[in-house]
Amino acid sequence: MYSLTVRDHVMIAHSFNGQIFGPAQKLHGATYIVDVTFKRPELDQDDLIVDIGLASQTLSEVLSDINMQNLDEIEEFKGRNTTTEFMARVIFDRMAASIEADQLGETGKGLTALSVTLHESHIAWASYEGSL
Amino acid sequence: MYSLTVRDHVMIAHSFNGQIFGPAQKLHGATYIVDVTFKRPELDQDDLIVDIGLASQTLSEVLSDINMQNLDEIEEFKGRNTTTEFMARVIFDRMAASIEADQLGETGKGLTALSVTLHESHIAWASYEGSL
Amino acid sequence: MYSLTVRDHVMIAHSFNGQIFGPAQKLHGATYIVDVTFKRPELDQDDLIVDIGLASQTLSEVLSDINMQNLDEIEEFKGRNTTTEFMARVIFDRMAASIEADQLGETGKGLTALSVTLHESHIAWASYEGSL
Amino acid sequence: MYSLTVRDHVMIAHSFNGQIFGPAQKLHGATYIVDVTFKRPELDQDDLIVDIGLASQTLSEVLSDINMQNLDEIEEFKGRNTTTEFMARVIFDRMAASIEADQLGETGKGLTALSVTLHESHIAWASYEGSL
Amino acid sequence: MYSLTVRDHVMIAHSFNGQIFGPAQKLHGATYIVDVTFKRPELDQDDLIVDIGLASQTLSEVLSDINMQNLDEIEEFKGRNTTTEFMARVIFDRMAASIEADQLGETGKGLTALSVTLHESHIAWASYEGSL
Amino acid sequence: MYSLTVRDHVMIAHSFNGQIFGPAQKLHGATYIVDVTFKRPELDQDDLIVDIGLASQTLSEVLSDINMQNLDEIEEFKGRNTTTEFMARVIFDRMAASIEADQLGETGKGLTALSVTLHESHIAWASYEGSL
Repeated sequence: MYSLTVRDHVMIAHSFNGQIFGPAQKLHGATYIVDVTFKRPELDQDDLIVDIGLASQTLSEVLSDINMQNLDEIEEFKGRNTTTEFMARVIFDRMAASIEADQLGETGKGLTALSVTLHESHIAWASYEGSL
Repeated sequence: MYSLTVRDHVMIAHSFNGQIFGPAQKLHGATYIVDVTFKRPELDQDDLIVDIGLASQTLSEVLSDINMQNLDEIEEFKGRNTTTEFMARVIFDRMAASIEADQLGETGKGLTALSVTLHESHIAWASYEGSL
Repeated sequence: MYSLTVRDHVMIAHSFNGQIFGPAQKLHGATYIVDVTFKRPELDQDDLIVDIGLASQTLSEVLSDINMQNLDEIEEFKGRNTTTEFMARVIFDRMAASIEADQLGETGKGLTALSVTLHESHIAWASYEGSL
Repeated sequence: MYSLTVRDHVMIAHSFNGQIFGPAQKLHGATYIVDVTFKRPELDQDDLIVDIGLASQTLSEVLSDINMQNLDEIEEFKGRNTTTEFMARVIFDRMAASIEADQLGETGKGLTALSVTLHESHIAWASYEGSL
Repeated sequence: MYSLTVRDHVMIAHSFNGQIFGPAQKLHGATYIVDVTFKRPELDQDDLIVDIGLASQTLSEVLSDINMQNLDEIEEFKGRNTTTEFMARVIFDRMAASIEADQLGETGKGLTALSVTLHESHIAWASYEGSL
Repeated sequence: MYSLTVRDHVMIAHSFNGQIFGPAQKLHGATYIVDVTFKRPELDQDDLIVDIGLASQTLSEVLSDINMQNLDEIEEFKGRNTTTEFMARVIFDRMAASIEADQLGETGKGLTALSVTLHESHIAWASYEGSL
């Protein structure tokens, strides 16, 4: 199995609901370093997993919807806790939808799986991975 | 599949038995940067994989048994080589036992797999992963 | 010249005032990975720059005042932009005051300079350094 | 499952064929930080995954064939694009052949899988993994 | 003293002249991770060292002249060895000229020093620093 | 000012004397990631700071005297605490002596300063720097 990863980042504010979150129930924020991994069993005719330019651009577009935002104010996240693991899934779903919509071009059609990792600090990170 | 990783470290002394170890047969030591990854297929009702506070605290407690120790003097390791890969398994087993003993609380009950990575330097690291 | 660095982190929310900040004028947030470097020309009688336990604890206490906070609501920062470079200076000043107040014990008295670096992402960081 | 990773690097020149590569169609180059991961389900009698000395030496030998080279001039790669993902597979195949040829000694015989990751920058890397 | 660093990268081919370079006399290549540090003694009226957007854009433009190039073919470098340290100086000079030409805007006028670091691998990097 | 850094590592055992060290008074150990930075104001006739091959080899030789050792048993360190900062100075002095003894060849003669950093973990490191 082949995989290619590209890295970008976002800076967001948010707060959590539930006693389990302790001081993180207050409005605070995070830089998420975002790694998206594209997987496929064979390379395409150009010896590529995916067009890395389109992959980076698509990730940047997906992230632009949440970058420099207060996640508490985004309608879609109402009633949920925008934890690092939750946001990994959100970005996974949006990247998967972009691939489905052919935004990665011909190379995107050969992808079979995706993994998204969000680093919230030097000592903690979370991922979501699944098939396409 | 979701996963969350927390990082901590230990500083230990030890020596190895067997010609294959060369100069490492002498008493020396290592800093192990320890990454523990918790996995589960779905998030809990708080949108969490695991209570990160309890996860970090449990890892810290598991590591405190070996931190600042000469591993050669620990009864449980007699007759074994405390290689990086062996210690990855030791920490896996102890973290798994802590989860089994409900030290990660309610969130720990949904975990289905665990992975432990020990970085012995900037150019070598070892892991053990398994189901819970 | 000797120097010792310890690393910790904070997660904060904030917004900026001024057209130069573009989308960062909106409420967002950041993880700051914080490196504090302690300097002195000679080691003390224990061959130390500073008691690393006290140094880490003091840094943790200094950071606890801003960790999990919306910096926009902190009185002291009113009228300022809490940029990464500004916050590096804030932490420098507070660490310097802690050293002045002998919170690093005997070892702290030999320190002659301090440097504080805040990493806001994998591609940007800011520092403030000065004499004590 | 146990795994052990060793890191090395190569510095190469190359160019790509195909419009999809844009400016990378011109002769340019890359440093590849190379991570090779060796996997096996149980440790050997010395509590090892693999002899790390032999593993590092074998990787170094495999890399020496491409290090400080213009990949465009290597016969074996003619007609292919020596992308990061393609080169990950090349190094995988050569490491697998070395293991097959018993260059990792007795410890190599227990290996069941291999993974090779090439980091081309701080924001992009590619892997190939497979069974042995 | 305050400092702000931004990171970018280039991928280049080149060769060296002189026996001291050994195998690096052949055409090969490198990824340079490029860190540029901007320094000034006081923040500006926005609490900034420099407009980070303009700083990143200016660095990107400076790097675009050498990115995806064979440095052996660039007229300006004829008769020189484009070592990592030499290229650190080249980028320093070009960034300094951009600042001189007011490409960093008002914020650039307060800068007093600059440092450029090029990482050629995980085990080697070179810098050039100087006053403005 | 130009600078070039090379990275290597050692794995050692040791213990400390003095209440200030707490649990580190017991025999334990560390991996030190060692960065040595060579400085000079102008490049040599090959556009080099120093012959990186000789620099790496010299560092490796200096480190081989302490690698895989129990520092408590080394005569030269008797009565001292082999803290990270103390060992940074030891390696500085030995590298300086090697340069003085012309082990870095012609390129070594132009060096004017040296800096040595030892990383003991992902959250702590120490340096010693001085003129040559």
